[in-house]
Amino acid sequence: MSRLVMKFGGTSVADLDRIRRVGRLVAAEVAAGHKVAVVVSAMAGKTNELVAWTDGAGPAINGLPISDDEYDVVVASGEQVTAGLLAIALRNVGVNARSWMGWQIPIIADDAHGRARIDDVLPDKLIAALDSGQVAVIAGFQGVTRDDRIATLGRGGSDTSAVAIAAAIKAVRCDIYTDVDGVYTTDPRIESRARRLPKISYEEMLEMASLGAKVLQTRSVELAMSQNVPVRVLSSFVEPGEAPGQGTIVCDEEEIMEKRIVSGVAYSRDEAKISLFGLPDHPGVSSEIFGALADANVNVDMIVQSHARTADTANMEFTVGKRDAARTVEIIRAAQRRIGFDDVQVNEDVSKVSVIGVGMRSHTGVAKTMFGALAEKGVNIQVISTSEIKISVLIDAAYTELAVRALHAAYGLDKL
Amino acid sequence: MSRLVMKFGGTSVADLDRIRRVGRLVAAEVAAGHKVAVVVSAMAGKTNELVAWTDGAGPAINGLPISDDEYDVVVASGEQVTAGLLAIALRNVGVNARSWMGWQIPIIADDAHGRARIDDVLPDKLIAALDSGQVAVIAGFQGVTRDDRIATLGRGGSDTSAVAIAAAIKAVRCDIYTDVDGVYTTDPRIESRARRLPKISYEEMLEMASLGAKVLQTRSVELAMSQNVPVRVLSSFVEPGEAPGQGTIVCDEEEIMEKRIVSGVAYSRDEAKISLFGLPDHPGVSSEIFGALADANVNVDMIVQSHARTADTANMEFTVGKRDAARTVEIIRAAQRRIGFDDVQVNEDVSKVSVIGVGMRSHTGVAKTMFGALAEKGVNIQVISTSEIKISVLIDAAYTELAVRALHAAYGLDKL
Repeated sequence: MSRLVMKFGGTSVADLDRIRRVGRLVAAEVAAGHKVAVVVSAMAGKTNELVAWTDGAGPAINGLPISDDEYDVVVASGEQVTAGLLAIALRNVGVNARSWMGWQIPIIADDAHGRARIDDVLPDKLIAALDSGQVAVIAGFQGVTRDDRIATLGRGGSDTSAVAIAAAIKAVRCDIYTDVDGVYTTDPRIESRARRLPKISYEEMLEMASLGAKVLQTRSVELAMSQNVPVRVLSSFVEPGEAPGQGTIVCDEEEIMEKRIVSGVAYSRDEAKISLFGLPDHPGVSSEIFGALADANVNVDMIVQSHARTADTANMEFTVGKRDAARTVEIIRAAQRRIGFDDVQVNEDVSKVSVIGVGMRSHTGVAKTMFGALAEKGVNIQVISTSEIKISVLIDAAYTELAVRALHAAYGLDKL
Repeated sequence: MSRLVMKFGGTSVADLDRIRRVGRLVAAEVAAGHKVAVVVSAMAGKTNELVAWTDGAGPAINGLPISDDEYDVVVASGEQVTAGLLAIALRNVGVNARSWMGWQIPIIADDAHGRARIDDVLPDKLIAALDSGQVAVIAGFQGVTRDDRIATLGRGGSDTSAVAIAAAIKAVRCDIYTDVDGVYTTDPRIESRARRLPKISYEEMLEMASLGAKVLQTRSVELAMSQNVPVRVLSSFVEPGEAPGQGTIVCDEEEIMEKRIVSGVAYSRDEAKISLFGLPDHPGVSSEIFGALADANVNVDMIVQSHARTADTANMEFTVGKRDAARTVEIIRAAQRRIGFDDVQVNEDVSKVSVIGVGMRSHTGVAKTMFGALAEKGVNIQVISTSEIKISVLIDAAYTELAVRALHAAYGLDKL
């Protein structure tokens, strides 16, 4: 009998009815002969409520609570509740089950409270329980530090919990149940001809996740890739008695027979463009700017620098997350004398559109197709950035849907 | 510097504003030079919500959830939330504090999930934290079993947690903060001349608690008595900047200088009277009746048996909790053939009024005063029961307030 991890997010366990449905999905896998470990998130909305309470109990600095260790104590209770309720629901359909908190397994985390990383999962007790025929219902998103405090893994951390557990117990697969039935070539709300991908490589999924496709948490994909855990994304929103679909398997590139050049088109509206004009053109200026931003924990994404036609000054454009935009301008302005520039401007009316595919490594012409398709629709490209398997462009936000649909068609993704 | 335990119930931590007020009360005791351990309940209403969810996840048998271990996992999360929030609020007013769950201390409990008893409190880590100048904020109502599962202590269990912690860390006192400012000679809502008692003995408090005065949980008083922990009951409902009053000290009888014959008048409307007519007058009948009720976990309180004037049959009257009344009649009827009686009747329209005082041990005439005062007001006594330090009478419920006020005056409690 093979071990299987099933993970259910907040919308899948949003209320008692949904929790009972999840119980039936788990019971079906048990009946199919699997030894099942289930990882659960907090009921939808619960985490936000608990976070708001921690904010109310004491003021926050830079968006992080002062008392991040106690923040973790409060917020981790959400997953504890779901784990207990699902264990009850499972017993109620005749499945032997018990709940496990992070400290009971234990899942050892570092002490970066609120955004901790999993150092280790000690799987012996869990494996013994599974081998005894008991389903393990595990509170996601949480671990225990080496000095016995509760630590949470940050938003979306339950995906990471699930993959780490799957690696530790050597599960055949980690099934991530969510409110969509797989990973799509693009957002179906924008392009109705978007197709579900039967398989996608870890690398592509990683780019998709970090480029705005909110199906899986980036860290969980990194972990799955490094531990070589096959992940499947599928929907928990099936009627009683109905089986979930095949979903999308996230796996090693080698295991995907028919490789596509481009697998998907992603977009993000969370960007803001910062433009600096009249920078002195000498070494050390970039390091001055980005050093100050790194010190303030501002994450900078795309960067381009251009030289003014006249005079020996340069201009620079880069993007940051929209919620960091105002703070970025403050930091830059505070350092104006030191950096020496004429003007700084912000544009929040931009979006980033990206095409992703491992096939880019071996195929040329992907960029040409992209720029051609956008030009044809009159979409102006403001900034370009590339990696080995993706090309991203920053465009006027008003053109987002148009650009996504044009690129989806240009790479033939609607004919998969 | 002496150690002090402060315990705050659900209404005292009902929302963020109240939690911040509790933070100020704790800060004041720290400023006064105490090493403080705080025990907290769940925010008012939270436990009921969590219990309702466990009911929704799976059906219950005889009012107890099937999955009492998982019930505990869910319900214990309420105190976890409060402990974290209070720790944050304390740091926010400059007090070094951290939260402690039952498993972190640990508070060892037996595995009678949902109504566990505390076996042991291992205080070393807690004492080390207190000695380092840190306030310990402890989740009440919970412990951990010897095989590392969460166990809850049953309703009102946070009082018991607080007393057990106080005994383990050798605290000078256990202050129980609640929504009343002490223990009164009787319910002030019935008798406006009721007086706060500056001190009351453990034995009297125990009778008060079990006779309907809902200030402290019975088990916590038993524990305080056996461990000789002085307990103080006082109100958390004071304005910012205002100090709480003196409250009521619950302590050993020996420490109360001015002993009163009667300390208080308690009442309970939760009783139902069961009357059995025409019982065969031979040995074994009582054991038949009360054996059947004990098997069904029905708690029987007052019992009287009387012989019919004619014939060799007897009548019997006893009281049970109102919520057990219907079930009691069912059980008795089911055993009618075996017991052999003519008729069974229920009267839910009764209440139990009691006078309590350690002075009864050495003073005669207490009963005479009681019966005289009731007779004077025309209150008919249906059943009488006594212990060393209390006399209880069952009367028509309509006379409850009248009887309470008459007894309060008869023993001069309004002139304390």
